[in-house]
Amino acid sequence: MSRDADLEAFGRALRHWRKQKGLSQEELAGRSDLHRNYVGLVERGERNASIKTMFKLAHALGINVAQLCGEIR
Amino acid sequence: MSRDADLEAFGRALRHWRKQKGLSQEELAGRSDLHRNYVGLVERGERNASIKTMFKLAHALGINVAQLCGEIR
Repeated sequence: MSRDADLEAFGRALRHWRKQKGLSQEELAGRSDLHRNYVGLVERGERNASIKTMFKLAHALGINVAQLCGEIR
Repeated sequence: MSRDADLEAFGRALRHWRKQKGLSQEELAGRSDLHRNYVGLVERGERNASIKTMFKLAHALGINVAQLCGEIR
């Protein structure tokens, strides 16, 4: 997949929150029922995940999607 | 697709903003390069759109994704 500024920004926000919560990619993946590799790909903006996956990730982080997206810079 | 509370909530937020901006589904679809039927399906929570599509919709509405998701109830 070619680089996409929006997906990269989303990925950085996801990584920000994961670290904020002290979780490894593997731990976040386990809580969200996703493969660890997939979490890494999303954090690097290399996968265009679905909105449902965004909700799963936010729930697994104990935040809502507005908070997740609020960290997009 | 079976009903999904998260996708329905997202769809309601999208509809809220579209109406707030005084746009028809057709106008929003045109601005976001999506099919009008697809916008309707997303607003009803019947499609699990991608994060990239969420960005396109937010941009077309002149808001950011945190604002879009901030209306999720």
